[in-house]
Amino acid sequence: MTDDPNKQLTGWRYRLHEIIFEADTPEGKLFDVALLVAILLSVLAVSLESVESIRNEHGTMLVAAEWVFTILFTIEYVLRLACVRRPMGYAVSFFGIVDLLAVIPTYLSVLIPGAQSLAVIRALRLLRVFRIFKLARFLSEASALRQAAVASRAKITVFLTAMLIIVMIMATAMHLIEGQQDSGFDSIPQSMYWAIVTVTTVGYGDAAPMTPLGKMLAAIMMIIGYSLIIVPGGIVSAEWMQSSRGKPITTQSCPHCSLEGHDADAHYCKHCGGRL
Amino acid sequence: MTDDPNKQLTGWRYRLHEIIFEADTPEGKLFDVALLVAILLSVLAVSLESVESIRNEHGTMLVAAEWVFTILFTIEYVLRLACVRRPMGYAVSFFGIVDLLAVIPTYLSVLIPGAQSLAVIRALRLLRVFRIFKLARFLSEASALRQAAVASRAKITVFLTAMLIIVMIMATAMHLIEGQQDSGFDSIPQSMYWAIVTVTTVGYGDAAPMTPLGKMLAAIMMIIGYSLIIVPGGIVSAEWMQSSRGKPITTQSCPHCSLEGHDADAHYCKHCGGRL
Amino acid sequence: MTDDPNKQLTGWRYRLHEIIFEADTPEGKLFDVALLVAILLSVLAVSLESVESIRNEHGTMLVAAEWVFTILFTIEYVLRLACVRRPMGYAVSFFGIVDLLAVIPTYLSVLIPGAQSLAVIRALRLLRVFRIFKLARFLSEASALRQAAVASRAKITVFLTAMLIIVMIMATAMHLIEGQQDSGFDSIPQSMYWAIVTVTTVGYGDAAPMTPLGKMLAAIMMIIGYSLIIVPGGIVSAEWMQSSRGKPITTQSCPHCSLEGHDADAHYCKHCGGRL
Amino acid sequence: MTDDPNKQLTGWRYRLHEIIFEADTPEGKLFDVALLVAILLSVLAVSLESVESIRNEHGTMLVAAEWVFTILFTIEYVLRLACVRRPMGYAVSFFGIVDLLAVIPTYLSVLIPGAQSLAVIRALRLLRVFRIFKLARFLSEASALRQAAVASRAKITVFLTAMLIIVMIMATAMHLIEGQQDSGFDSIPQSMYWAIVTVTTVGYGDAAPMTPLGKMLAAIMMIIGYSLIIVPGGIVSAEWMQSSRGKPITTQSCPHCSLEGHDADAHYCKHCGGRL
Repeated sequence: MTDDPNKQLTGWRYRLHEIIFEADTPEGKLFDVALLVAILLSVLAVSLESVESIRNEHGTMLVAAEWVFTILFTIEYVLRLACVRRPMGYAVSFFGIVDLLAVIPTYLSVLIPGAQSLAVIRALRLLRVFRIFKLARFLSEASALRQAAVASRAKITVFLTAMLIIVMIMATAMHLIEGQQDSGFDSIPQSMYWAIVTVTTVGYGDAAPMTPLGKMLAAIMMIIGYSLIIVPGGIVSAEWMQSSRGKPITTQSCPHCSLEGHDADAHYCKHCGGRL
Repeated sequence: MTDDPNKQLTGWRYRLHEIIFEADTPEGKLFDVALLVAILLSVLAVSLESVESIRNEHGTMLVAAEWVFTILFTIEYVLRLACVRRPMGYAVSFFGIVDLLAVIPTYLSVLIPGAQSLAVIRALRLLRVFRIFKLARFLSEASALRQAAVASRAKITVFLTAMLIIVMIMATAMHLIEGQQDSGFDSIPQSMYWAIVTVTTVGYGDAAPMTPLGKMLAAIMMIIGYSLIIVPGGIVSAEWMQSSRGKPITTQSCPHCSLEGHDADAHYCKHCGGRL
Repeated sequence: MTDDPNKQLTGWRYRLHEIIFEADTPEGKLFDVALLVAILLSVLAVSLESVESIRNEHGTMLVAAEWVFTILFTIEYVLRLACVRRPMGYAVSFFGIVDLLAVIPTYLSVLIPGAQSLAVIRALRLLRVFRIFKLARFLSEASALRQAAVASRAKITVFLTAMLIIVMIMATAMHLIEGQQDSGFDSIPQSMYWAIVTVTTVGYGDAAPMTPLGKMLAAIMMIIGYSLIIVPGGIVSAEWMQSSRGKPITTQSCPHCSLEGHDADAHYCKHCGGRL
Repeated sequence: MTDDPNKQLTGWRYRLHEIIFEADTPEGKLFDVALLVAILLSVLAVSLESVESIRNEHGTMLVAAEWVFTILFTIEYVLRLACVRRPMGYAVSFFGIVDLLAVIPTYLSVLIPGAQSLAVIRALRLLRVFRIFKLARFLSEASALRQAAVASRAKITVFLTAMLIIVMIMATAMHLIEGQQDSGFDSIPQSMYWAIVTVTTVGYGDAAPMTPLGKMLAAIMMIIGYSLIIVPGGIVSAEWMQSSRGKPITTQSCPHCSLEGHDADAHYCKHCGGRL
C-alpha cells in the first residue's frame, strides 16, 4: 500500500506529514519547537538522574518524566512511520535510526538497570534544530563544513597515519625508559595513551615521565605535537579557502582541445589558443 | 528639557561634555588618562583585598581606597548623566550600564559582606582605553574583529552544536564505562565537564579514565578535539581574510575591455584606461 | 650477477618481484594486504605482551605469535633481497633498513630480555599502506605535506631557536624564584622541562609554581606560548597555500597584450589568444 | 681617537675586526663556530651545575669550566670593544649589552652565591648562530617574522586586552563561587592565575573547580579559550599572507594624480585614467 513512491499522501496522513516533517505551517513549526523542548528536557532529566544526590531526592519524579517523554517519543515515532510515504526509507535513514535508538534505552532499563543512561543518544535528535530555524544559512554552513572535511580527507588520513606511527614508536621508547618507574608507563598500551595525551597537548598529568631521559624524550614529543597541531590547521584552512575563493575556476572545457580548468576570466583556451 | 536630541549643549554642560566624553582637548585627554589610572588602581585594590595575608595587614587602607575610588566614580557617573544631551540614552548604553555596575558593589558591600569583589566589573571600563589612545587603528581592528566574529556566527553555531552533541554522547559513554571507578565520572554532568576539559585540550587531570576501555575512548576524544581545534581556525581565518582583503573588489567590469576585478575605489579601468 | 642495473629480471625472480614489490596484479595486492594484516597483528602482539596481566595469562601464545611473525618477516626480507634487481640499493633504502630493523629485536631478545619491545619499530612498515591503497591522491598529499614542511624549514628553525632561547631564560628565572620551594624547579634542566610543558600548553601539573612571583612569570610564559602557537600556524598555512595554488603562475607575459599571470602550463594568452 | 665614524680601521684592529665581527674569511668562520661551541658548553655547564647530584660529584670541575668560559668571554668582550670603530655604539647595541650581561653573573657569584645561574642569559648570544650560517634566508625569515608580528601589533593588543578583561571578570566570579572550597581560588590574583592557565588551555590542575556552578563556569571559560585560540591564528595568518602575497602592489604613484597603491599589472591609473 505504501510501497509506491509516486503515490501522493492524502487526507489525515498528508496533514500529519505536513505537521511532523515540515516546518512551513504554523502547526508544523509549533510541533518542531515543542519537540525540541521535549528533547532538551528529557536529556536534562537523564543527566540529572545520574547525579546521586539528586536521584535520592527527586528520583521518582525524574523516572516518571523519563517515561512520559519516552512514551511521547514512541508515539511520535509511530506517527512518523504512519504518515511518511515510504516508511522503510525513513526507518533506515539517519534520523529514523536515531529516533528509534532514542526510545529503546528506557524500555531496556526495565530489564537492565542503568540502561536509561543511553537515552542521552536522543541528543542526536537536536540536530533537527537547524531545520526548525529554517535558516538556510546554517544548513549551507553545515554542508560547507562537511564538504571541507571530506575534501581534506586524504590529507587528514596521511596526517593521522604519520601521527599514529610517531605515537607508537615514542610510546615504546618511553615504556623501555620509564617502565621500571611507577610513573604510568607499565605497558605499551599505557604508554600509547600517555603519548596521545601529550601529543594532543591535553596533558592530564596522570602519567608523566620521572627520569631525566624520559623527560627529554617527552619534551621532544611535545614540540612535535606543538608543530603537528599546526599542519592540519593549514590543511583545512587551505581547503576551505579554495572552496570559498573569489575567482573560481569555470567548469567550461575548451571546445577545441577539451582542456578543463580555465580561469573564469579566460577568453581563449590557454592550451590551444582556440576561443572558448 | 534634555529630551530634544537636536538641542545643542551650551555653557558648562558643553565644556564638561568635551572633557568627559571626548579626548581631543588637552583637558579631555588628561581626564581620560586619570580615569584609566583610577580604574586600574581600584581594580588592583579590590584584587589585593581578596588576598588574606594582605587584607590582614593593609585591610583598612585598601577599604579606604576602595571607598575613595567608588565615590569618585559615582561623581563621574552623575556628571556624565548631567552633561550628556540624552541622559537616558547614555544610561541604557553599554558603557552607561557598566559605569553604574562599577559603583554599585561597594555600596552593596555595606549590606552583603564580600560583594565588593564584584567591583572588578569595572575592569570592563578599561575598554575605554582604545578611545583615549585616539588610535583609529585600534578601533578599526576591534571593529574588524567583531565583524569577523559576527560574520562567522552561523559557522561557529554549527560547530559548537556539533561539538556539544559529541560531548554529551561521549560523556554518557564514559559515565557508563568509568562510573564504577573512583575516577571522577560519577554522573553525566561530571562526565560532561570532563569531556569539555578534554576536547578543549585543557586537561586538568582532576578526572581521568582508569579502565583500558575508558582510556581508549578518551584517546579518541582527544584526537577529535585535536582535529576540531583546527576547523574554527579555518573558519575565522577565511572570514577575516575576505573582510580584510584591503580594498574589496567590485563586481563591476570595464565597459570597454570587460576586464573585471577592479578595486572598489577605481574610476577607470586599470587595463585599458576607459571610464568605468 | 645482480649488479647490472639495466638487466631485466627474468623467470621466478620477475614474478616474485611483481608480487612483493608491486600491487598491480591480484597476487601482488593480496600479498600486500596480507603483509599489512601481519604487521598490525605483530605490533598488537608486542603491545599486549607488555601488559603484565595479559602476559601472565597468554604469555606463551604471544611469544609464539611473535616468533612466527618474525620468521615470516625474515623470509620476506630475504625474498625481497633475492628478487630485487639491485639488492644493495634496497638494503640501504629507507624501507630496506626498516624491514631489517623490524626483525632484529626478536632475535636480540634471546640475548637481552625486553628487547622484543623494540619490535614496535615495524610500525614504520605501515607506511606501506599508502602504496597498497594505490591511491595516488594519498601519495601526492603526503609529498605535498613533506614539501610544505621542507619549504618552511627556515621559518621553523628561526621559530624554534627563538622559542628555545625563551625557554632557557625563563627556566633559569623560574629556578631562581621557585628553587627553594618543593614545586619541581630543583635544577635548570628540570625548569626547562617545565617551561616546555608550559609553552606547548601541555601542562601536566607535575611541576607548577607556588610563589606569587613564580605564578606571575608562569602566566606570562603561558601567554607567550599561546601567542607563539599562532605564528607557525600562519607560516605553514602560507607555505601550503602558495604550494597548493593548483598550477603555479609563470612570470611570463603575453608578447601581444603583455598580460601577466598565466598558468605555468599555458601555451596561449588567456586574454588575447596570442601565442606565448 | 675612535670617535670618527668615517675613519677606517687599520692594521691589527682591522684584522681582528674581520675575525671577530665578520664570518667571510676562514679565520672569521672558525672564530664564530668556536664561539658558538663555547657558548653552548658554558650554558650546559651552568645548567648541570644546578642539578644537585651532579654538583656534588663534579662541582669543582663545573665551577672551573664556568670560570674558564667567563674569562674567555671577558677577553672576547674587551677585544670586541678594542677593534670596533665606535666602541660606544657596540657597547649600547643589543649584542653589546648581551655580551656584557653574559660575563657579569660569574663575577657576581663571588659576592652573591647562586648568581652564576644568571649566566644562562648568554643563551641570547646564540642568536648569532644565524650570522655564522651566513644563511641570508634565515635572516630574511627572521625579519619577516618580526615584520608580521609588528604589523599585527594593533590586532594583538586589541585581542589581549579583550582576553585580560574576560580573565579578570571570570577570575572574580570563580573566587566568589569557589572561594570557600579548598580548590585554589582563595584570592582574586590566585583565580586570575587559574583563569590564565585555563584560557590558554595549559590546564595544570593545581587549581580546579569543585562545585557544580564553578565547573559550569569553567567549562564556559574553556570554550571561550578554545574559540579565542582561533582568532589570533586568523590574524597573523592574514597578515603574513598579505605580506607574502603573489601579486604585490607597486610603489609606483600616478604621475598625474599621485595616487599610490596600484596593482603591479595596472597600466592606467585607476583613479584618473592617466597612463602610469
